[in-house]
Amino acid sequence: MLTRNAKGVFVIAPTPFLPDGALDLASTDRMTDAFLAAGAQGLTLLGVMGEAPKLEQEEALTFTKRVLQRVAGRVPVVVGASAPGFATMRAIARGSMDLGAAGIMVAPPPGLKGDDAVSSYIMQAMDAVGDAPFVLQDFPQLTGIHISAAMVARAAADARLVMLKAEDCPGLDKLSAIRQMEKDGKMPRISILGGNGGQFLPEELSRGADGVMTGYAFPEMLVKVIALMGAGQRDAAQDAFDAHLPLIRSELQPGLGLAIRKHVLVRRGILAHATLRAPGPKLSAATVSEIDYLLRRLEMHSGIKLS
Amino acid sequence: MLTRNAKGVFVIAPTPFLPDGALDLASTDRMTDAFLAAGAQGLTLLGVMGEAPKLEQEEALTFTKRVLQRVAGRVPVVVGASAPGFATMRAIARGSMDLGAAGIMVAPPPGLKGDDAVSSYIMQAMDAVGDAPFVLQDFPQLTGIHISAAMVARAAADARLVMLKAEDCPGLDKLSAIRQMEKDGKMPRISILGGNGGQFLPEELSRGADGVMTGYAFPEMLVKVIALMGAGQRDAAQDAFDAHLPLIRSELQPGLGLAIRKHVLVRRGILAHATLRAPGPKLSAATVSEIDYLLRRLEMHSGIKLS
Amino acid sequence: MLTRNAKGVFVIAPTPFLPDGALDLASTDRMTDAFLAAGAQGLTLLGVMGEAPKLEQEEALTFTKRVLQRVAGRVPVVVGASAPGFATMRAIARGSMDLGAAGIMVAPPPGLKGDDAVSSYIMQAMDAVGDAPFVLQDFPQLTGIHISAAMVARAAADARLVMLKAEDCPGLDKLSAIRQMEKDGKMPRISILGGNGGQFLPEELSRGADGVMTGYAFPEMLVKVIALMGAGQRDAAQDAFDAHLPLIRSELQPGLGLAIRKHVLVRRGILAHATLRAPGPKLSAATVSEIDYLLRRLEMHSGIKLS
Amino acid sequence: MLTRNAKGVFVIAPTPFLPDGALDLASTDRMTDAFLAAGAQGLTLLGVMGEAPKLEQEEALTFTKRVLQRVAGRVPVVVGASAPGFATMRAIARGSMDLGAAGIMVAPPPGLKGDDAVSSYIMQAMDAVGDAPFVLQDFPQLTGIHISAAMVARAAADARLVMLKAEDCPGLDKLSAIRQMEKDGKMPRISILGGNGGQFLPEELSRGADGVMTGYAFPEMLVKVIALMGAGQRDAAQDAFDAHLPLIRSELQPGLGLAIRKHVLVRRGILAHATLRAPGPKLSAATVSEIDYLLRRLEMHSGIKLS
Repeated sequence: MLTRNAKGVFVIAPTPFLPDGALDLASTDRMTDAFLAAGAQGLTLLGVMGEAPKLEQEEALTFTKRVLQRVAGRVPVVVGASAPGFATMRAIARGSMDLGAAGIMVAPPPGLKGDDAVSSYIMQAMDAVGDAPFVLQDFPQLTGIHISAAMVARAAADARLVMLKAEDCPGLDKLSAIRQMEKDGKMPRISILGGNGGQFLPEELSRGADGVMTGYAFPEMLVKVIALMGAGQRDAAQDAFDAHLPLIRSELQPGLGLAIRKHVLVRRGILAHATLRAPGPKLSAATVSEIDYLLRRLEMHSGIKLS
Repeated sequence: MLTRNAKGVFVIAPTPFLPDGALDLASTDRMTDAFLAAGAQGLTLLGVMGEAPKLEQEEALTFTKRVLQRVAGRVPVVVGASAPGFATMRAIARGSMDLGAAGIMVAPPPGLKGDDAVSSYIMQAMDAVGDAPFVLQDFPQLTGIHISAAMVARAAADARLVMLKAEDCPGLDKLSAIRQMEKDGKMPRISILGGNGGQFLPEELSRGADGVMTGYAFPEMLVKVIALMGAGQRDAAQDAFDAHLPLIRSELQPGLGLAIRKHVLVRRGILAHATLRAPGPKLSAATVSEIDYLLRRLEMHSGIKLS
Repeated sequence: MLTRNAKGVFVIAPTPFLPDGALDLASTDRMTDAFLAAGAQGLTLLGVMGEAPKLEQEEALTFTKRVLQRVAGRVPVVVGASAPGFATMRAIARGSMDLGAAGIMVAPPPGLKGDDAVSSYIMQAMDAVGDAPFVLQDFPQLTGIHISAAMVARAAADARLVMLKAEDCPGLDKLSAIRQMEKDGKMPRISILGGNGGQFLPEELSRGADGVMTGYAFPEMLVKVIALMGAGQRDAAQDAFDAHLPLIRSELQPGLGLAIRKHVLVRRGILAHATLRAPGPKLSAATVSEIDYLLRRLEMHSGIKLS
Repeated sequence: MLTRNAKGVFVIAPTPFLPDGALDLASTDRMTDAFLAAGAQGLTLLGVMGEAPKLEQEEALTFTKRVLQRVAGRVPVVVGASAPGFATMRAIARGSMDLGAAGIMVAPPPGLKGDDAVSSYIMQAMDAVGDAPFVLQDFPQLTGIHISAAMVARAAADARLVMLKAEDCPGLDKLSAIRQMEKDGKMPRISILGGNGGQFLPEELSRGADGVMTGYAFPEMLVKVIALMGAGQRDAAQDAFDAHLPLIRSELQPGLGLAIRKHVLVRRGILAHATLRAPGPKLSAATVSEIDYLLRRLEMHSGIKLS
């Protein structure tokens, strides 16, 4: 089960597809192994970057089951359950927890009006997912929903809230404000993982984050940065981080990012195919060439091996 | 099967729920009967106002099956299949057509960039729904997607496009422009039904609409207005329409409209419960009183009986 | 000066232009006279429907001065001062108050994040407009900013806030909530005027509104509805209102509404030209014909004379 | 005058303020000198990052005049003239060109519906700015307006369109598509400058951009990258670029970016104060410390001197 002490790199797993769009379970296993080998301390399934809205309910269940079997309890697995209705959210949460998930992640949906409506939604969502440890995703760039530090504190009064995925942008001062409220005794300590593709990882760690939840295709770098920061080697951490920033930047392009991420995972030998479910973008030859150039630089400069 | 000659009132059916949120199949039957008795020349299921996103796939299928059995081929039934992925759209379309649906309705999703991307999406969606007659929903207030008259013409070059649900606002000049393009031989004639809660029905009919697709709780008025306009009795049509405009206006309130609509259908004895699936609004006592006042005026002034 | 006892119809004045786009000051005088003759108990200048963003600063000043001279203190005149920066807001407010305006209206701008940011903005805006009576415009359909009843109460603790322009939609329950907070002693009584083109005037008055602020082209009807509601003649009030609802509905079409409103004011002999500043829509012949049809019905059924 | 051969780094100048919010003309001069000394081949005034909407018309004129006098014709100066009405756009354009500006930049505003409406707006805007060379800003992240390669070609048929500021994201394939249309003789060659804070400069240059228009606080790096890319030294160019990417990333934070940029310009001795006009964000001590850390790394690793 996920607890408020969770930390490290939680890798957001993409959903691998065969060229015809069917689930690619062989790649699913290989990917799970690769992420754990890279030092992942958790996995996240069926998030936005997992193409969850494009999966049939049965496919989502099949994929979740496959990953959970492969992980076999070695690390906690969080499953995304954001849905237009609480009935569906409840069904996804129950199904996932029954299969062995460690927690359920939900982002408040677009259209909620005002702080009270958002706070009320979070409480209702916690009720919907039942006893499952709850991960609150704060991602206003996608949802348009603002969650203040005080609202996080309010939600954290409920013991089911164990983790915040903090990806407001700019969001660093909010992260500091939450940690300050904890120190001031105004809320219990919760686990906070950064997001946003990892692009502010060093700063997030300085501000008190416990780690990061992202699907960036080189989780071993994220693991290393966290270790170096923890050891007080900030310059070395920043060096390791900076080498990857050009690729992180490319992965952050809206709409195109997931296609790039899958391409990189194919280059690394982790996925068999870079297929996205339709409708979705395809990488141009020029983009592929640009990404491959960045990968070659990574190999040369950072000692990382593609595969 | 739905054809380009379809006309009249297509009633958008809400999905009836029991107080605990389960499907209310008894009300489903009663509602189906009531809409046909009111003169509906078609039904539409699983649209935005049908709470489709809050249904499990199995529930959506159960509901669709129940309505189709009750209708028993007397009028065409259109099923909404808008979905984030074409795989899901295909599954809904096939499932519905196998059960006896007459056509599939899709609205292009938010985020498409530029006319070509929209036109391309429409073609891909027609491929996804296969041989099913295709209803294009033009609803930019919800989707942010603009579809020009020329883009409708482009889509109508494909024989599968049989109907446009025209609910851009303002949208009357576009409706005229499409009919003009048809007259000019620039596109084949298609069926066009207005939308937007019916609030511009007289003008839409003057501009060449074949009818209206809305879930307004008194479809018999819409039927009557169409008949009077067809008989050249515009003033009588407008009189009949104007009597309902205060209630139509109330039903158009974003977020609250469906709750009001279900309340009215309960007052009419058509639904057993006004339940919306969570999360959803509840009517305040003051709102109920205001709606009931408008209903009493309707009974007095327009000769319509609630039940 | 505007006070918390303000009530009645505040007419939002459009800015009249000559065919070449220059200010039409002769029409400005005629319009001012016509609105006062219709029973307006206040005027509002330079709002969204006054094409304020299309005016040069000097033109805005000239127009404001002209209206204020014509009004000559007979009714309070509110001037809109929403602006991207507080420096500009301060300049508009000072300029207008020096010329004799009775109050300044501001809507919080898009992009504010969370209740506290909105409340803080309102306080800063009150500081920017100085000692001028402050009208808070609550118009989330345009701004995306939610203002709860509790936030209105917070702002009303400052004596400078005298009036709320309440045009959230749905917004009737919020109006009731504010009046209840006043009764419960949680906030002082403020003036509340409805908005939204007047489309919910009877309900707003029932909920406790003091009147309405809108530019609907027949303010005499609004005056009459308020009088009848005040006299307890709700049915008569609703009858008077319902006769105008088809035209109110047409005026509410986004983007097109102001062009329709100016067309009606030309038909009434109040404006010389229906010119909008570019970029702006033009009415098609079909739309003009539809509006003129509604005007003829108004003349026949409600005894109102166009001019 | 700006021509279709324009290239290099066009620095978007912030508007310097004194602590009380008044224009800081001494800093304006120092900033102008610094940008030219850094190798800027053009300047851009009164863009979004120039806080243009927060300036009075007279202040905007004063600032423009001051910069133009200081530049004294050494490089072309582009002035932003996006405005809600064409009358205002015309006034800004005329005023700026009379003072010696080399071109006028306009972005189509939010709310235009469909490709034709956008193309039509661009033509009307070119008419509004008269004979001035026209820079089309393609910035959908801010405006929500999509401009395809074909629409750029359509606009470029008018000789007044001399430059595209290309900051769609992802936008690299569109840049390639435009250059391909030029090669295929489907449109004349125009100047294309990248944007988006410079974060894709190497890729943009590879795709055929002539330079970049951004206010990133170290324009000398951008100049160097362009020179190295032009000399075929892509690895060296990427090295120079990568060293700055962490700071570029920080400057890209929505809302906070300009405050960071002004802070860096103060640290460099270019601006006297980092003041933003209210309402605007303030940097926390933690953010200042993070930015200063990145600056120290820049000094150490890239040989760049702060001042």
